[in-house]
Amino acid sequence: MIIVIKPNTPREQIDAVIAEVAKLGYEARPIFGTEQTVIAAIGDERTHHTLESLNVLPQVQQVMPVQRRYKLVSRESHPCDSVVNVDGVRVGGTHFVVMAGPCSVESEEQLLATARAVKAAGAVILRGGAYKPRTSPYEFQGLGKEGLRLLQLAKKETGLKIVTEVLSERDVEHVAASADVLQIGARNAQNFQLLIEAARSGKPILLKRGLSQKIEEWLLSAEYILANGNPNVMLCERGIRTFESYTRNTLDLSAVAVAKMESHLPVIVDPSQGCGVARLVRMLCRGAAAMEADGLIIEVHPNPAEAMSDGQQQVDFNAFRQLMQELPPFLKAVGKAM
Amino acid sequence: MIIVIKPNTPREQIDAVIAEVAKLGYEARPIFGTEQTVIAAIGDERTHHTLESLNVLPQVQQVMPVQRRYKLVSRESHPCDSVVNVDGVRVGGTHFVVMAGPCSVESEEQLLATARAVKAAGAVILRGGAYKPRTSPYEFQGLGKEGLRLLQLAKKETGLKIVTEVLSERDVEHVAASADVLQIGARNAQNFQLLIEAARSGKPILLKRGLSQKIEEWLLSAEYILANGNPNVMLCERGIRTFESYTRNTLDLSAVAVAKMESHLPVIVDPSQGCGVARLVRMLCRGAAAMEADGLIIEVHPNPAEAMSDGQQQVDFNAFRQLMQELPPFLKAVGKAM
Amino acid sequence: MIIVIKPNTPREQIDAVIAEVAKLGYEARPIFGTEQTVIAAIGDERTHHTLESLNVLPQVQQVMPVQRRYKLVSRESHPCDSVVNVDGVRVGGTHFVVMAGPCSVESEEQLLATARAVKAAGAVILRGGAYKPRTSPYEFQGLGKEGLRLLQLAKKETGLKIVTEVLSERDVEHVAASADVLQIGARNAQNFQLLIEAARSGKPILLKRGLSQKIEEWLLSAEYILANGNPNVMLCERGIRTFESYTRNTLDLSAVAVAKMESHLPVIVDPSQGCGVARLVRMLCRGAAAMEADGLIIEVHPNPAEAMSDGQQQVDFNAFRQLMQELPPFLKAVGKAM
Amino acid sequence: MIIVIKPNTPREQIDAVIAEVAKLGYEARPIFGTEQTVIAAIGDERTHHTLESLNVLPQVQQVMPVQRRYKLVSRESHPCDSVVNVDGVRVGGTHFVVMAGPCSVESEEQLLATARAVKAAGAVILRGGAYKPRTSPYEFQGLGKEGLRLLQLAKKETGLKIVTEVLSERDVEHVAASADVLQIGARNAQNFQLLIEAARSGKPILLKRGLSQKIEEWLLSAEYILANGNPNVMLCERGIRTFESYTRNTLDLSAVAVAKMESHLPVIVDPSQGCGVARLVRMLCRGAAAMEADGLIIEVHPNPAEAMSDGQQQVDFNAFRQLMQELPPFLKAVGKAM
Repeated sequence: MIIVIKPNTPREQIDAVIAEVAKLGYEARPIFGTEQTVIAAIGDERTHHTLESLNVLPQVQQVMPVQRRYKLVSRESHPCDSVVNVDGVRVGGTHFVVMAGPCSVESEEQLLATARAVKAAGAVILRGGAYKPRTSPYEFQGLGKEGLRLLQLAKKETGLKIVTEVLSERDVEHVAASADVLQIGARNAQNFQLLIEAARSGKPILLKRGLSQKIEEWLLSAEYILANGNPNVMLCERGIRTFESYTRNTLDLSAVAVAKMESHLPVIVDPSQGCGVARLVRMLCRGAAAMEADGLIIEVHPNPAEAMSDGQQQVDFNAFRQLMQELPPFLKAVGKAM
Repeated sequence: MIIVIKPNTPREQIDAVIAEVAKLGYEARPIFGTEQTVIAAIGDERTHHTLESLNVLPQVQQVMPVQRRYKLVSRESHPCDSVVNVDGVRVGGTHFVVMAGPCSVESEEQLLATARAVKAAGAVILRGGAYKPRTSPYEFQGLGKEGLRLLQLAKKETGLKIVTEVLSERDVEHVAASADVLQIGARNAQNFQLLIEAARSGKPILLKRGLSQKIEEWLLSAEYILANGNPNVMLCERGIRTFESYTRNTLDLSAVAVAKMESHLPVIVDPSQGCGVARLVRMLCRGAAAMEADGLIIEVHPNPAEAMSDGQQQVDFNAFRQLMQELPPFLKAVGKAM
Repeated sequence: MIIVIKPNTPREQIDAVIAEVAKLGYEARPIFGTEQTVIAAIGDERTHHTLESLNVLPQVQQVMPVQRRYKLVSRESHPCDSVVNVDGVRVGGTHFVVMAGPCSVESEEQLLATARAVKAAGAVILRGGAYKPRTSPYEFQGLGKEGLRLLQLAKKETGLKIVTEVLSERDVEHVAASADVLQIGARNAQNFQLLIEAARSGKPILLKRGLSQKIEEWLLSAEYILANGNPNVMLCERGIRTFESYTRNTLDLSAVAVAKMESHLPVIVDPSQGCGVARLVRMLCRGAAAMEADGLIIEVHPNPAEAMSDGQQQVDFNAFRQLMQELPPFLKAVGKAM
Repeated sequence: MIIVIKPNTPREQIDAVIAEVAKLGYEARPIFGTEQTVIAAIGDERTHHTLESLNVLPQVQQVMPVQRRYKLVSRESHPCDSVVNVDGVRVGGTHFVVMAGPCSVESEEQLLATARAVKAAGAVILRGGAYKPRTSPYEFQGLGKEGLRLLQLAKKETGLKIVTEVLSERDVEHVAASADVLQIGARNAQNFQLLIEAARSGKPILLKRGLSQKIEEWLLSAEYILANGNPNVMLCERGIRTFESYTRNTLDLSAVAVAKMESHLPVIVDPSQGCGVARLVRMLCRGAAAMEADGLIIEVHPNPAEAMSDGQQQVDFNAFRQLMQELPPFLKAVGKAM
């Protein structure tokens, strides 16, 4: 940590800060500059008391952390790309994977038709919400266990692997029994108890970035999972909340590049949630592929206009097939393949 | 709902939208304007299929909901101010209540000293975190059950009521056994399973606004609690995430006025989280009081520089006493009293 | 500046950074920590080359400036509150001033009626836009010079001082001839050429915060004015752009407290622009007064529903009179008076 | 416009709104729904009084505009892609154009070396700031007219076209005499007087999106230029301000897709400003190309670590050459070529 002292602070007040730094377990090294004094506090910031509390002292202008707060997820701790194994499907490195399916599982007919269509177009993992986090208590909340049963059925019929969201610690066990990947949704990105419980299931986890989560915080949410013994994390950029209202969220494709630079984990992009506008999905898929994302998760519905949730951002079978056909040259250019 | 059709759309494509609106259960009333056609869809938006999915149709420019999505929390359903009873302490209406105490419960000595100090200065509810949601897995996570025990001890000794955060569905039962108010933190503001579980405990709930939650969404989170049979909700504005970085969050005092206009629930302000800067807390308390907040929740620590969490935003006993002494004229001017 | 070196960087690459720091005019003091090395660069950051460019070096993790970038506007350079003299009206210190009037000057009748009404209710400065910055080229752009003539007429009749916005460097001279205060609008908050030109007029300047301007940047815009020889600046908080859409902007009342702590300049609050909702203006006026703002600028119109611009945020004469009557207890509590 | 009336409003208050709508020049068509009444106001919103002012009426819940506010820039008014002619270089349609050069023009040597290097790598337009808008008055403000002279010299020697920023209405004439494209910077994106003056020069204009400008507002800024007789506008996405702080801005690549869907104008992407991090530029260039941007504007410097402005986001000659070599497969996949 670096503690910046206000200009013109008398020496004894500087010494008081030095003493406090030492008391909190760091070695204090003051540097007396031409304009201001700074104190470098030497020690591992992750295992010591934070010094940000020193901001309350009137002579302190600012406290600046120096170290990255995450370890296990960092590139430094694992220089090569991690590859996550989803029941035999490899995600990361040169393996580009498309997950697709309806926002919500609505019926056997809807799910199976979609599963067949997305498989035919090249998807290898089926998405579908059985438990739906909805802003209003009056909206469709998902089919629950019946939804999980239908996902299992679709897996049996098509061989697609299954990714589905888990909303509650209490559901982790039975969702893990039906799914190949547990999805942690954006609203639960800092529900740390759920992260820990999901980690302990041992299943691969698709960790969506929170609506207003900084990249560092997103990586720290992943760190919770790794620190609880589960290295199989796929980060998922799904748009952040900004002032822009044309799109539902602002897909932060820079964050894909940053996450891949800072971390070894694979990064998946969700263009459907990312913009909330079906007719933009195709373009965003291309952008994500070009920026070396390791995969996509795309909402596909047989008839989006009548979908029970988020129809406005779901593409139909034709649109999905078309966007899949367009991806190969972009993937080839970045050295990946589906 | 209002469906706006793109300019120059042929009649048969307009008719297709009209048919879809009818199919989804609404009565469709087209209005043919000079520039564009709009279709008013008549029916209760809360009980019917959403029409936002119609945005996928190429001839649709925009779908605009008309109704408020919340019912039970709305002023319309309950024109008078709700007053929440916290084990005999009344919050709301003309009753202004101050909740104060440390960010985290750290020790018996720390908690009891703080409890006595805040009580002497006029607080009636003691805050203190036993379970702490921390961005990094390496940060202090709270004392857990021992923290709850200490809070109970402080209640016994001082008579202060207790508010503490619950992080997990599984903890609701035992936290509710020790606390008078369950706090739902900002990171869990849309953890709907936790909201439902907390609602069922029957305890009063302090519902913090999410970091990037729109006011409407915050009210809908409260609606989850009321819809699950618990009317004892206190809304808590605690700052939103914006681009500004001088303060940790941007305290949205307008949201206090909006929430009180749209809803009958009491609104509490958290100036400590709201700005993250101890020396600003005093001013924000005044602003909140002047804007008719129903109370404050303030972080107070015997020695903030050595606090185990968020020391930079905690005030010491002197600062707390001083800010409490300054509040009465503001409260009097708005017709409230502590 | 502090330059943070990445962990495990070989010594010769650290030395390369030290050499570059020295080349750019600073004295470099490396501190070798247990985890990472940091280099303190000693020298006045305001007069030397910025070192943020060192971020391009692969071995550099981060560059952190230490000094405040503003001088003349800082509290350190001028510990007492500045009081700005507006043609005899004092703003700042214990002097609380209300500026009021229509969003746009629309006609002689509208302006004079409003001027009389706001004067009767206690305002001392008349606001009114003659040149209007409008998002669309098809919206009402103001009466221009005729608007300035009407403002002069209103001053003559009522004795109110005049504040009006200047949009163009070319208009500074003639607007300064008609107005007592030049307003720089939010959209021009970083139009530095306009700031310089306005500064040179010698007139007091009301400097609105930009829609997405950090507090530091807002103070630096003020610094441009002071550095060009004009100390008569009033800062004006008018809401920032956030994700919240209930209000047009999010009024950042914390920024009032921050600006007054960091700077000696008076701070005015614009609740009309700040929320864009007429029925919230009254509450925001109270909050601003309680937080030690030095004044308010409020949009008032004889018939807001028919206003030619921004009617939704203008209050009528009755509402204005009522809110003015409510302010004195709040002002008294903070040691100010109108 | 659609005016939504609050639930349970008595008929005479609805009639009052209807009368006001008619008075303001629209035909009012009330629709009495099961829950609420809405009034459709028929008429061209762009030529009539806005009805948003009706929000001040207590019985009005909300006013919702229906029409797009821009005309000339819309796809509807010009279904084909516009191609802008920059002194013989075509931008838009299938023509992908790279503009590159230093953030600031610093010296003849620096500019000419850069011009030669970027030309050799495939750029056809040279960028370089002669007038620099700087947040602090103490930062390097550009070489001014000498900078323009050097740009002319570079054009003469290399044949590259010139794009440079104009900051002041007073500079438009002489900047237009030296430059082939006038750049309007993000801070001036709503400096409407500058937009109008620049439009009148007749030169092609590169219009950067404002830091917190919604896409609709950006298109309306372009509309100012077209409405003033100049159709040669290139939109430039350069990142928006969000809560994320790893990157300086958040490059909104979705906005490229939206702008191209809503408008016929070419869209250029600025990855350097867009993220503020040199090592991310390469990835963002790929993403922009894949999403059908019509060009890039990239900051290139012989020695970024010693650049006089924004060195941290400038790439050196090698990095520029490498990223240019990687672009062709992405361009080919979208049917464009350099």
